[in-house]
Amino acid sequence: MHGFSRRHTVEQALAWLDAQLHQLPAEEVPLREAAGRILATPVVSNVDVPGFDRATMDGYAVVADSTEGATSYNRVALKHVGDAMPGSPFHGTLAPGEAVRIMTGAPIPAGSNAVLPAEFVDACSGESSGSIAALATVSPGKNVGQRGEDIVHGTTLLDTGRVLRPQDLGVMSSIGIGHARVVRRPRVRLVITGNELLPAGSPPHGVHITDANGPMLEALAVRDGAVVDFPGLVRDDADAILTGMQADADVVIVSGGSSVGIEDLAPTLVASHGELAVHGVAMRPSSPTGMGRLGQRLVFLLPGNPVSALCAYDFFAGRAIRALGGRAKAWPYRSMRGTLTRKISSPIGRLDYARVRLSDGQVEPLSISGASLLSSTTRADGFVIIDQDSEGFPAGTDVDVWLYE
Amino acid sequence: MHGFSRRHTVEQALAWLDAQLHQLPAEEVPLREAAGRILATPVVSNVDVPGFDRATMDGYAVVADSTEGATSYNRVALKHVGDAMPGSPFHGTLAPGEAVRIMTGAPIPAGSNAVLPAEFVDACSGESSGSIAALATVSPGKNVGQRGEDIVHGTTLLDTGRVLRPQDLGVMSSIGIGHARVVRRPRVRLVITGNELLPAGSPPHGVHITDANGPMLEALAVRDGAVVDFPGLVRDDADAILTGMQADADVVIVSGGSSVGIEDLAPTLVASHGELAVHGVAMRPSSPTGMGRLGQRLVFLLPGNPVSALCAYDFFAGRAIRALGGRAKAWPYRSMRGTLTRKISSPIGRLDYARVRLSDGQVEPLSISGASLLSSTTRADGFVIIDQDSEGFPAGTDVDVWLYE
Repeated sequence: MHGFSRRHTVEQALAWLDAQLHQLPAEEVPLREAAGRILATPVVSNVDVPGFDRATMDGYAVVADSTEGATSYNRVALKHVGDAMPGSPFHGTLAPGEAVRIMTGAPIPAGSNAVLPAEFVDACSGESSGSIAALATVSPGKNVGQRGEDIVHGTTLLDTGRVLRPQDLGVMSSIGIGHARVVRRPRVRLVITGNELLPAGSPPHGVHITDANGPMLEALAVRDGAVVDFPGLVRDDADAILTGMQADADVVIVSGGSSVGIEDLAPTLVASHGELAVHGVAMRPSSPTGMGRLGQRLVFLLPGNPVSALCAYDFFAGRAIRALGGRAKAWPYRSMRGTLTRKISSPIGRLDYARVRLSDGQVEPLSISGASLLSSTTRADGFVIIDQDSEGFPAGTDVDVWLYE
Repeated sequence: MHGFSRRHTVEQALAWLDAQLHQLPAEEVPLREAAGRILATPVVSNVDVPGFDRATMDGYAVVADSTEGATSYNRVALKHVGDAMPGSPFHGTLAPGEAVRIMTGAPIPAGSNAVLPAEFVDACSGESSGSIAALATVSPGKNVGQRGEDIVHGTTLLDTGRVLRPQDLGVMSSIGIGHARVVRRPRVRLVITGNELLPAGSPPHGVHITDANGPMLEALAVRDGAVVDFPGLVRDDADAILTGMQADADVVIVSGGSSVGIEDLAPTLVASHGELAVHGVAMRPSSPTGMGRLGQRLVFLLPGNPVSALCAYDFFAGRAIRALGGRAKAWPYRSMRGTLTRKISSPIGRLDYARVRLSDGQVEPLSISGASLLSSTTRADGFVIIDQDSEGFPAGTDVDVWLYE
C-alpha cells in the first residue's frame, strides 16, 4: 500500500474541475417536456399577442361617442346588431348607435372602440326587440385590450440560461413555439463497484452489504438535470470497471475503490487510459476522491462509503453535471444562519463537511464516531462547511447551514 | 348575463377547499422512482448496518495487546496470516502475534479487536517473509466500526410524510428495502376549453390564439406532484366539457368558460351534475374562479386568462394537488422581504396578486394595465399578496415577495 502522491486542496481540485466545464450543446424538446430545462437561445416573439384588439370585459362593443350622457336615469338606446365570441368574431362594421354583444377575449368589431360592461346595460328588452339600453358612458378605448398589449412582435421574452418556469411555457406556447431549444441533459454513467455489494432490493446478509450509492447517486444526478445510465453493479475487476467507464456518457461516476489500497483499481485505470488529474483531496469525508478524464468523459472517483460519496458528489460531480447542463454551479441547497450549540473542531489544512440538525435557529452538530455513517445524512437537516483555513467554530458561533431539503 | 350569486372571500373559499382535502392512499414504487415522493409509512430497519464489525481504515487487523510498546524505534514483529477484503473475509481466527491485512469496510476477523493503520506498519519485508512490523500501538476497538454503528435493528429511520431525499434512498437500500411505500400521486385531468384556441405548437393567426394554459397548468401540476392527463383542447360544448370532466381523476382543472357569460358552460355543468360550492372569489385576478365536486373528483374552474389561471391554480388547485399527494399545502415558493419602490393599491374587500420585480431588496410592482398579461409573470420575479383587509402599501413598505423560481 502507498499513500496519495499529493493531496489537493478543495480549492485546487475545483480549479481543475472548473477549467473542464463547458456547457453542452442545445437540443429541441417538446414544450410539455421543457419545464425546469435550461433555455439555450433567447425566446423572441415574431407575433403580437393578442394579434387583434380584444374585449377585456363581458359587455357590448360600441362606438364610445354613442354612449355620451347615458346614465340609469338617461337610458340611451342602442341597436343590438350581433354577437362576438372569442374565436367567433362579428364580421360587420359597427356604426354609431349600434352595439355588439361581446365576451372577454373576443375581437373588437370593426368600427367600435370601447366595451360597455354588461352591468351598465339593460339588455332584457333588447333580446327580443333588437335594442338595448346603455346605462353609463364609456370613453374610447375603455375595456379594450390593444393588439400586442401582452407581447409586441420582436420582443425578447426570455433570455438564454433561464430555468424554464410553468408560465414561461405558457408564454412560449402563446407565441406559437411548440418546441423549446434547451441545453442537452448531461448523460451520466454510474459505475458502482464492490464485490461486497448486493443490488438494491436485496436484504444485506453475512459479509455482504446492500448498495446504497447507486440509488442515492442516481437520484442526485437526476436532481441536477442528468440522464442517468446505471446498468448494475460492477465487480472489482479491472476489465469490468474499464468497460463500465468507457460508456457513451459525458460524466462517469465511479463509486468504490477510489483510494490507494490493493483493490483500488479505478485510479490506476484512469491514469493509464486517460488523465488522473486529482487523486486525494484535503477534506473529510471524501479524502480518497479522484477526478480525471477518459477521452471526452469527465470521470469522478468517489469513495465507496456513502457519506463520502455524497460529499464528493456535492463538491465535484454535482457541480460538473449542473454546469454541463447550463445550470448554476452552486449547490442547489438553500442556506440559513443558525447558532452552534456545540463546538465543531477541524484541523487546519482540511475542509470538513459536518452534518447538523437545525431547529429554531439552533445548530446541533451530529456526533460522528470515526467512520461516516449514512444515517447521519438522513438525521441531519443539512451541513456546515469548515474551510481548510479554519480550526472550527466554538459553541455560540453563527454559521451557515446548507439545507438538504 | 347575470352576476355571481355570491362572491366568496379567499378565506371562505380556502375553508371549503381544505375541508375536502384528504391524503390519497399509499402505493409501492421501486426505489429508483421514489426520490421526491412522500413517504406513507415510517421506515424501520429490521437489520443492523453494518451487519458485522468492520475496518474503518486500511491496515492490519490485530489483537490490540500484541502491539503494546511498538514504536518506529521498537518494531514489533507480527505474523501476516491472511487478507480480508470487503465481501471476502478472513475465515480463520486471529491469535495474539498475528495480523491480517484488511481493507476499509472488510469484516474484522474473529479474534482480532483493532486495526493498525497501514502507515504504522512496515510491510515491505513481510510480503515475502510472512511477517510484518508494527510501528505503533493500537488500543482495543481502534479503527473498528461496530455492528449496528450506522443503523441498529428496530430503529425508525424516516417518518411518514417525509419528502424522500437522495440519501434516504441510500439508507433504505442499505437496509434491504427495494420499494418505497409512498403516497399515490394525484391524477389530474386538464380540460382546456375555448373555441378560439389553437393547440400548443400552432402559430396564432387571425382571431385564433394559441393555448397557453395547457402547457402551463401541466407543468404546474407536475411540479406539485401530479400525474397529468391532458388529452387536448375541448370545444365550448356542454357535452364535450362534461365528458372531459368525467375523467378517471382525483382533480379536474377546467380552464376557460368559468364566469357567468353566455358561453360559460362549466359552472352550470358542475352545479347540475355535482356540487358547485364556490363560484366567484373576491380576488384579482381570478375572480371568476369556481370550485366544486363531480362525484369523487375535485373540480377547479379556472378563468381562461392565463394570469388568472395561474393565480387561481396557485391559490386553490395547486394547494389541493399538494395536499392530496401528502405534501405541504403552502406554496412551493420561497419568500423574501423587500422594500416597495412604488405604492400598490388594492380596494378593501378584495385580495390582490401583484406581480413584482425584485432586485437588491427593492420591490418594483409591474404596472399592469387593466387586463392581466401573461408576459407579466415571466418578467416578474414573484408576487406580493395584498389581503382583502388592506388598501395596499405605500412606497417604502417592507413586503414579502413570493419568488416564482
